[in-house]
Order: sequence, then C-alpha cells, then structure tokens
Amino acid sequence: MCVSLLRAFCRECPFDFVRLKMNPHGNEEPVFEIGVVIPRRVVQEKDESCDCAYVLVKEFEKVGFVVERVIGIADEFIKLAAPLETLGRAAAELQIKKRTLIGMDLQFEVEEVKAFVKQPDGSVFSWCERFQCYCHLIYGIVNNKSVKTLKFDGKEIHWKIGENLLLKLESENIVKQVFPLHDEKKRKKLLRSWALHWWHFTNQPIDEIYSYYGAKIAIYFAFLGMYTRWLLFPAAFGLTLQLIDFGSLKLVVLPVFFIVVILWAIMFSQFWKRKNSALLARWPISFADATDQGYRIPGTKASSWQPPIELMKVFESDRAKEKELFQRYEWLGRLMRFRNDAIIIFSIICLQLPFELAYAHLYEVLDSDIIKFGLTAIYLFAIQYITKIGGKVSVKLIKKENNENTEKRADSLIYKVFGLYFMQTYIGIFYHALLHRNFYTLRQVLIQRLLLSEVLENLLENSLPYLKYSYKKYRVRHKKGEKGEAREKIQFTSRVEKEYLKPSYSASIGDELEDGLFDDFLELALQFGMILMFACAFPPAFAFAALNNLMEIRTDALKLLAILRRPVPRAAATVGAWLNIFQFLILMSICTNCALLAWLYDEERKWKIEPGLAAILIMEHVLLLIKFGFSRIIPEEPAWVRANRAKHTTQAQNMCYKKLLRTISGGDKGFGEGKKLE
Amino acid sequence: MCVSLLRAFCRECPFDFVRLKMNPHGNEEPVFEIGVVIPRRVVQEKDESCDCAYVLVKEFEKVGFVVERVIGIADEFIKLAAPLETLGRAAAELQIKKRTLIGMDLQFEVEEVKAFVKQPDGSVFSWCERFQCYCHLIYGIVNNKSVKTLKFDGKEIHWKIGENLLLKLESENIVKQVFPLHDEKKRKKLLRSWALHWWHFTNQPIDEIYSYYGAKIAIYFAFLGMYTRWLLFPAAFGLTLQLIDFGSLKLVVLPVFFIVVILWAIMFSQFWKRKNSALLARWPISFADATDQGYRIPGTKASSWQPPIELMKVFESDRAKEKELFQRYEWLGRLMRFRNDAIIIFSIICLQLPFELAYAHLYEVLDSDIIKFGLTAIYLFAIQYITKIGGKVSVKLIKKENNENTEKRADSLIYKVFGLYFMQTYIGIFYHALLHRNFYTLRQVLIQRLLLSEVLENLLENSLPYLKYSYKKYRVRHKKGEKGEAREKIQFTSRVEKEYLKPSYSASIGDELEDGLFDDFLELALQFGMILMFACAFPPAFAFAALNNLMEIRTDALKLLAILRRPVPRAAATVGAWLNIFQFLILMSICTNCALLAWLYDEERKWKIEPGLAAILIMEHVLLLIKFGFSRIIPEEPAWVRANRAKHTTQAQNMCYKKLLRTISGGDKGFGEGKKLE
Repeated sequence: MCVSLLRAFCRECPFDFVRLKMNPHGNEEPVFEIGVVIPRRVVQEKDESCDCAYVLVKEFEKVGFVVERVIGIADEFIKLAAPLETLGRAAAELQIKKRTLIGMDLQFEVEEVKAFVKQPDGSVFSWCERFQCYCHLIYGIVNNKSVKTLKFDGKEIHWKIGENLLLKLESENIVKQVFPLHDEKKRKKLLRSWALHWWHFTNQPIDEIYSYYGAKIAIYFAFLGMYTRWLLFPAAFGLTLQLIDFGSLKLVVLPVFFIVVILWAIMFSQFWKRKNSALLARWPISFADATDQGYRIPGTKASSWQPPIELMKVFESDRAKEKELFQRYEWLGRLMRFRNDAIIIFSIICLQLPFELAYAHLYEVLDSDIIKFGLTAIYLFAIQYITKIGGKVSVKLIKKENNENTEKRADSLIYKVFGLYFMQTYIGIFYHALLHRNFYTLRQVLIQRLLLSEVLENLLENSLPYLKYSYKKYRVRHKKGEKGEAREKIQFTSRVEKEYLKPSYSASIGDELEDGLFDDFLELALQFGMILMFACAFPPAFAFAALNNLMEIRTDALKLLAILRRPVPRAAATVGAWLNIFQFLILMSICTNCALLAWLYDEERKWKIEPGLAAILIMEHVLLLIKFGFSRIIPEEPAWVRANRAKHTTQAQNMCYKKLLRTISGGDKGFGEGKKLE
Repeated sequence: MCVSLLRAFCRECPFDFVRLKMNPHGNEEPVFEIGVVIPRRVVQEKDESCDCAYVLVKEFEKVGFVVERVIGIADEFIKLAAPLETLGRAAAELQIKKRTLIGMDLQFEVEEVKAFVKQPDGSVFSWCERFQCYCHLIYGIVNNKSVKTLKFDGKEIHWKIGENLLLKLESENIVKQVFPLHDEKKRKKLLRSWALHWWHFTNQPIDEIYSYYGAKIAIYFAFLGMYTRWLLFPAAFGLTLQLIDFGSLKLVVLPVFFIVVILWAIMFSQFWKRKNSALLARWPISFADATDQGYRIPGTKASSWQPPIELMKVFESDRAKEKELFQRYEWLGRLMRFRNDAIIIFSIICLQLPFELAYAHLYEVLDSDIIKFGLTAIYLFAIQYITKIGGKVSVKLIKKENNENTEKRADSLIYKVFGLYFMQTYIGIFYHALLHRNFYTLRQVLIQRLLLSEVLENLLENSLPYLKYSYKKYRVRHKKGEKGEAREKIQFTSRVEKEYLKPSYSASIGDELEDGLFDDFLELALQFGMILMFACAFPPAFAFAALNNLMEIRTDALKLLAILRRPVPRAAATVGAWLNIFQFLILMSICTNCALLAWLYDEERKWKIEPGLAAILIMEHVLLLIKFGFSRIIPEEPAWVRANRAKHTTQAQNMCYKKLLRTISGGDKGFGEGKKLE
C-alpha cells in the first residue's frame, strides 16, 4: 500500500491519527496495549545488530508500532502501541469485515474509513478488532531477506528465510509471553466510576466496559446487573413470606409465590434477550466479528480446519452434489455432537450419580458430626478431581466435533461441563428434598450453600489471584536475593512487570476454550438453579442471592481491574449457552417445585399415585421436554442454504467491495449534505 | 424518465423486452394479465373521444399497456398486458425493493436491472411484483390537463383535474371490476404437469406454481405435499396396529405408537421450517416484499396508517424520547392485541363452550336416532352462523390493532378464528373421550369426521364454485334471453368473460384479510389435530388422512386452475400463523394422548388421583404452557431497536442507492469477467 496515499488519507481522517492521549504536561503519549516479555540478559551483546531484543524492537518498529522498552527486575518488556495507520493496514490485510453505514458488513479499507460505523467512543476499531490486528502484526514478522544470526545471552539462533520470528523465539523460550496491557488512564477511570461505586447498586458504565474489555465481558456485567435488579422483587416477596406468619394461609401463599416466581423467571429470560439486542444495537458489532474469527489467544494459530469453505470451492460447479455434500457434512457433525453428548450424559449418570448419591446417603444416615465433617472433606477433595477430569474429557471430545467457530465450541463445552456441575450441586439436594422429604436438611443445605459457600467463593475468587501474585513477586525477589542483592531494596517500579506477574483471567476447567467468564457464569447459573428449583422450600433464598450479587458486581469489577491482567477480548456478544441453561433451569424448577408443593401438602404421606399413571406422567414430561428441546437441536435453516447464500453474496460483495465502499463513503458525504439541505 | 434512455436500456437489456410469447404461427403475442370489466353499452357514442371506454383504453395505452378490447355477451372487457419497460417504470415509481446480487434489498432502477437477482424462470419481476405494478399503473391514472366530460350509455361524467379515473368510474359503477387473468399457456401446462398428474403422488412442480401463483400458494402446496409424504409413515404404522392383533401386547404397542407419532409430529414441524427456508433460498424474495406492501386487493388503497414511520420522522432529533415513544407504542399495541385475544377467548368459553357441550351432552343422552339426526341438522345450521359472526367480530377487533402489515393482521385473524373452530371441532370429542371415556362414540365420531366430512368437503369445495359459475352463466343467458335472443345460441366465446363469471378464491370468513388459503389451511390443521390428538384411540386415522391429502393435492390444484379465477398474489412466503397452530396441536396432543392412555389402561376406573395433586398437576401444565408461549408473545428484539436500525440503514441506502446499483451492476460485469479469468 502506498505510504503517501496513507498519509494523505490520514491528513483528511477525522479520527485521531495515532491513538494518542494528552498527558498532564501537554505532550502526547501513545497508549501501549500489548506487552512482549523476554528474559533479562546477563551478558550484553557488543554488536547491537545481532542482539535478539534489538532486532525484535527494530522489526516491530518496521511494522509500524510505537515501541517502548522497559527493563524490569527479572525480565525485559517491550511495550507496543499501534497508530491507526498501522491498525488500518493490518485490518485490511486481515480482511476484517466491519459494519458500514448502509448496514452491510464489508471488508475494511483504509481509504474508505468514512463508510464504516464508528464505535460508541468515536474510534474506528473496537478493542477486539485492535487485538486481532496486533496479533496479526506481531505474529506476521517473517524473514524475507537473508538468514540472520541472532544472539541472546550467548545463545545463537538462526533466523531462516520465511521463518516466523515470534514463533521461533517462543520455541527458543526467548519470548516468554505476549499479553494485553492495561491502559492505566482508562483503568483508573473505570476503577472510580465502576468498581468502587458501591452506592450505585446495579448501575454500571456498560459502554465504557465494552470499549475497554470487549463485548463478551460487558455482556456478562450487563446480565449480572439486570439479573440482580430483577432479583430484588422476588427477594422482597420471599422475605415477606419468611417474616410474616400467614398462619393457616401459608398453604395458599406458597403456590402463589411459586407461580409468581416462575413467571418472574420466564419474563426475565425473555426481557434479557430484548436487553441484549438493545445493547447490540448500541455497539456496531459486525456479524462476521461475532461469529468468525474473534477469539484467538496469542501464539495459537487460527485453526486450519474449515471444511465448509473448502467444500464451497471444490464443488462450485455441481449444485446438487454440493447440496448433498453439505447435508452429509451437517448431519455427520450433528451425529458427532450427539454421540459426545451421549457419552458425557452416560458417564455422568453411571459414574458421577452413584458417587453423589452415596455421599448424600451417608450424610443422611450418619449421626456423628465428626465423621460427617471428615466425609465432607473427602468429598470436597474428590469432586475437585472429578470436575477437572470431566473438563479435560469434554475438551478432548469437543476437538473432534466440527463446530462452526470457537464460540460454538465454547458453548458445546459449557453444556457438557454444566451437566457435571448440575449433578454435583443439585443431586444431593434432590435426594434430601424429593426422596426423603427431609425439609429440614434441605433448608440447612440451602443456607449453607447460599451463604457460606458464596461468601467463601467470593473471598477465594479475589484472594487467590492476589496470593498468586504475591507469591510470584516473592519468588522474583527471592531469586534476585540469592544473587546477592538486598531483598528489601528490590522494588517493582515498572507497571508492566507488575502486570506480567498478575494472574490471567482463566477458567478453572482449563483455558483452551473458555476464560474466567466460565466460572463467573457458572456461579450465577448454579445460584439461579438453587434459588429457583427449591423456591417453595425456602423463599428467603432470593434475598441472599440478591445481596450476594450486589456484592458480586463490584468484587468482579475489582478483580478484573485491579487483580488480574487485562483479559484477551472475545468477540461474541451474547450470553451464549448460558441463556439456554437458564431456560432449562426454569423448566426444571416448574417440575421440582410442583413436587415440593405436593410433599408439603401431603404431610401425612397419604397421597398415592398408581404406578401406571406415574409412568404415563413421566412419559408426558419427557415428550414435552423433547418437544421444546428439539427445535434447538435441529436448526431451522439447512447448512447448505446458509452456505449457498453466503457464497453468492460474498462473491458479489468481494468482487465490488472497493467500489461499494467508495460509493458509501461518497454517499455518506451526499448524505450529510442532504441533511444540511433539509 | 427520459424515453430515449429507456429505449437505449431496452436495447441492451438481456431479458425479453415485452413479456411476449411465440405462438404456433411464429408471431409474438403479449400475455394479458389483468382484465377490466365495463358493462356492455346499449347506446354507441358518436363522438369517440367522449366515450368512456374509448378514453379508458387511450389512457391505458398512454400509460404503456398493451390493450385488447373484448366484447362479451353482457359486458365489455379491457385486457391489459405490460411490457417490461412499463413494469420497470412502475416498479421504480413504487420504489419496490428487490434483492440485489450483493444480497441487499435496494430500490429498483430500470437502468441497473443487471444488479438484481432474477426469478427462477429468468424474468425480472415475480408475479406478485408485476401485480403490484399493474395496480399502481391502473389506479394511477389522474387527470392533469383539463376537465373532461365522459359519456357512457347516456350518462355524463365529469372527470375533474386531479381526479383518479378508475376510482371515479368505479364509484359510478362503470368499471365493474379489475381482476387478474389466467395465462392460458401456462395454465394449460400446469394443468397437465400438476393437476392431472395423479400418479406423481406428492410430487409437484413447486417452482412453476411459484412463478404462476406467487409465493404464498406455492408454499401451501409445498407444505401439503411434504405433510402428505410424511403422513405415509404413521399411516402404515397405524394400519398395522389395526390389522394385526397383538393380543396381550396391545397395551405395550399403543404407548410405543403414541411416542413414535409425537416424535414424528415434532420432527415434521421442525423439518418443515428447513424445507421452507430451502424454498426461500430458491426464490429471490426480498425481505421488504415479504413484510411490507405485498398484498393489496385492487381498489383498496394501501392503509394510510403507518405510525412507526411517522414517529421516525417527527422524533429524529431526540433519541431518548424516540425510544420511549416507540416503547409506549409497542406495548400499547401488545396490550390491544392481548385485550382482543382475551375478548375472543372469553366469549368462546362463555358463549360457544356451553352451546357445544349442550349439543354433545344431548347427543350422548338421546337414544332415538331420528332426534339425533334432527339435532345434528340444527347444530350444523347454527354453527354456520356462529363462525360467521365470530369471523366478523374478529375482523372488527383486528382493525383496531396496530399490526405491522397485512400478513401480520391476517395471522392475528387466523389465531382468533382458529380458537372458534378448535372449540367447535374438538370439544364434542373431548366430551366423549375424556369425560365419558366413551371410546366407541369417539371412534365413531372420528370415522365420521375423517371419512364423511372430508369427502363431502372436498366435493363441496369443488362443486360449489362450479355451481356458482354455472348459475352466473345461466343468469347472463337468462337476462339476454329476456331481451329477445335465443338462449341456446348464446355462447360464451371469449375466455375473459368466462373467467369473469368464475368465482374468486375467497375465504369463508370474508375476504378482507384472508383468501381461500384460509379454508385450505384450516382443513389441514383441523385434520392434523383430529388424527394426532386422538392417535391412541384410533390409530388408522392416519391412513384416512394420508389418502384424503393425496386427493386434496390434485383437487386443490384443479380448483385453482380450472374452476376459480386466478387469485390475487400474496407476498408472504411462510406458512405464518398456521405453523404455530400446528405446534400448539402437538403440545395438546401430548396431553390428550396421555389422558387417553390413562383411561385405556384404567378400564375398571380404579386409578384415583388426589384433588390436591390434580390441582398441582394442572398448575404445572399451565406454567409449562406459559413458559413456551411467552417467547412468542414478547419478541426478542424491541421495536425501537428494529426501527432504529431500519432508519439508519435505509437512510444511508436511500441516499446512495443509485450509485450502489451502478456499482453492483458494474461489479456484476467484473464478477463475470473474474469468473472467466478463473
């Protein structure tokens, strides 16, 4: 791309040329968003042009980054900032599709930047897009001149022609990590306006969260906020039920509470969808962005697996054959997923269920509190391993599925792992409540889980990362100390080094497909199921949950802003699989609450049901479940129709997208003029 | 628009310039698609330029129609054909949005015809779009020169400046009707390849039906075909159950049949959605077409009511206010619809239900067959009136709703009227089956309804229009005969007059919102409910239904092709409300079949259920129903989001749509070249 042209564009460009900020002294400061870590060298190279770090910096500058080198205590850091010019070039190379003013997603072109819809904060690229561009640029440095010999701490590395510099250095352990950096200004602003704003209850600056963390995390907090706000109503109702003694009316009030709570949950799940689409209307998220390439952890390559596109190219000529192939492909994929789900469900029922039931039964039978305590300790120890194994098995199974994109794969993982957690969390309660009709134990367990475990979890969630961080700091100091320096004097002066030592936002089941959001959503879903499924047995549970979530909003914010590294942005802009899990929990809760009500009314155990009738009722419920689940399993649009449409329109779009963009950005001018004329 | 430019375009245009066909003699024949009826005059005007019919023809020719005058026995006919040139102009004036090659719907422009996706038969406009253009042109003739005095059979009409000619003449009863004409060639071809192709079972030339009748009718036949094809499986299963005596296994086989049939129904409804989207992929139906203006009966003006667009214009400045207004508007509309539905449901339960139950009870109690027969006759007579009144009330209520478009309004009518028919058809059967456990009467009623009434209905459906047609012919002859001509000699030589005398494809509940498809779909839905809801009581019902539907396909085709006028095309391209009704029937059938099974197993009436438990079960089922119905009531996307998006994108699109089109049709050229280069 011609540089002079770019310059010309940039002169005209209405947006900030480099992502610069005015510091208090008036001169401009670039915003560094990515950090590259290399170990601190012992031996300084004499010939700088052979020095690995030097070459790396030079190459980064050649690409167009603004580079700053920071020498920390144990490591050296290269901080990178990208001017809009560089980002634009990368976006064009990546063929990132962005929403244009006419509502269509087209490939980004630097010259026609006016044709694209801006972000709510006025910038051209969202954080997720910027991150994609950074990754592309950093991992795009290739030797195209001659073989170079790089030296690092005495080690010699031969950088061959056509070899990727970063991957090479990573394999040699010279580049230790590439990670996104916090933007201090914005972070501090968010800390003030969000994390420390306790008295704002459920209000949060969602748009700012979106532009700082990306869509997925912003959606999580929007969901958490709305859920908590909505929770206040059943919380008040539940507390009233608990505090006021209705006497003989109690048995009338309880079903009313049940119906109100279920209606509340149904309305909540539907109104959340509306809220979500309203949020998406505010953020110009392109469809491709939300489904295609978004989430990529640095270092991992984009999966080379993309059969639909390959199929597309190969079978362009024969439509009937193409359709057949697509259909076979679609159904095979579905079969694989079905098989995997069956394996998971089967192993949960055959392996986990007996274990959980054994624990619940022993807990019910045993009298001695000490033995109970020991049993619980063993149990808690065991489930740690079980969930870990389950997560690993699920990830392995999912790798063989042909899900369309990373987000779909993450959803598949969520469903599978949630099955495990569902069993683990609820089966004991079911055992006490439904089999033994032991309402006392049930309430005890609920209070225990809701109060103790949530407070503990909140504490753990925040203190564990901090402890990890402190330990890492200690180790660095310790190592240095061994080399003779006074430990007390070692201060972490550079912010980037501190960030490097902070733990990342990762999921407890491994970060291959999910990040820390998995744990946060899991906590919410389990809480939702707990309070809703046993609503009739313990109405004030809603109040506990509301209180806990009000805390959760700020502690999660604090965790993200102060304790963890800035997470890798994810493009998906919906809650994804979790909403379906919430819907499933609502369904379950209709059935469980009915059973609870029946047990509550039937105190003398006089009600009987014929086994034949019971069988018919079970059959009915299973069929109803299938009726409502089926439409989720089989999509309404066949894969070949979608592929066909995509093929035709994208072919035509790609053929003339440059002209289209010119038209739109020109049309935009006319559009503005038209407005003036009005 | 400059005529020379148009000519130039037409020379270049790759499509047939006028919709011409080669007749067997080699010269070209225009296809007349609209007929205008005026009464045959007694007095011939001397001054032709004042003659009403003459002026009308001249005006039509001025607009660009190819005109043919046919003098019939009682009336005179003006047949109109439109060259592509005329249609294109009308489409551009109407700002019809058509699918372009880049997958976006843009306003039609004659010069850029290459940018638009062609119909499957290669033409530019679909029948629905052509019809829209015809209506626009016919009802767009306005006097813009000077007051003219037109004479007709001695009557004098002053055609004032700015007055609409057709509306004026219609109000003076000179233009009796404007109606779509059959295309003889295509009609005969379809008659051979479709209506008389008995041995093809469920196969039909859907694409040809689409291009001749429009999307809605084609979708009906595709649905009927697929439904019949799918029916064969449960039909075979049901027959096996009936013919083979399973002995003691019978009680095991029946639940299996039930489960299989429900699964079949669930799969069918989901796979139909897939089929529908596959069909839509074949036909380039623009979104605007399917939702906005499509369906307009000639003579009726497009409803002037369009608040959302007005709201849009007025409140462009203030976003927050706009959002609030939209939300109030959306919720008010929903409230109105809810109120109307509540009125209908309330009146069905309070007025219709007692009546139906009274009839069922009397039928159950009475012994004498003669009284039973009389009772049934009175009943049949009464329900005719009830449904008519119900239909009228519903239409009146719907007029006060603010549904988005005509198709949505038609859907709202379907729901309301189906409630009525549902009660009428099934309540008696429920009474016999569930309340009295009278399986003998139940089977009798089912056989009666499935065999007798369907055969009768099929006969009536086809013979009634034919009788009407014959009667009309007779009346014309009779009138002429009174004037002294010999009746036997009066022959209907002109096809257009015969078509004029044919009845139109209209709904039994009035044609304000629905056409004859309502009755056809209603028949299917009632049959579906009948066979599915009582599947366990009478398995061979499926075989009857399959047989009936195999006949139905061809008789409906025959009815449309031979007995009725060509119907006014409708743009909607889905089954609409009917699919939801099918889904509801599946839900109902899960519950009814379970009840039936329980009654069947419990022959000695020993099974008992506590009233408390029964109440809980009913509550559970109601909540489950709400859970699944709620997502249909509250849409996932708020109205203001949709309006906002539409506003922004259409503004931008409208600003530069001409340039966009030029780009695409130019891009199309490049696209073709690109292909060659490959």
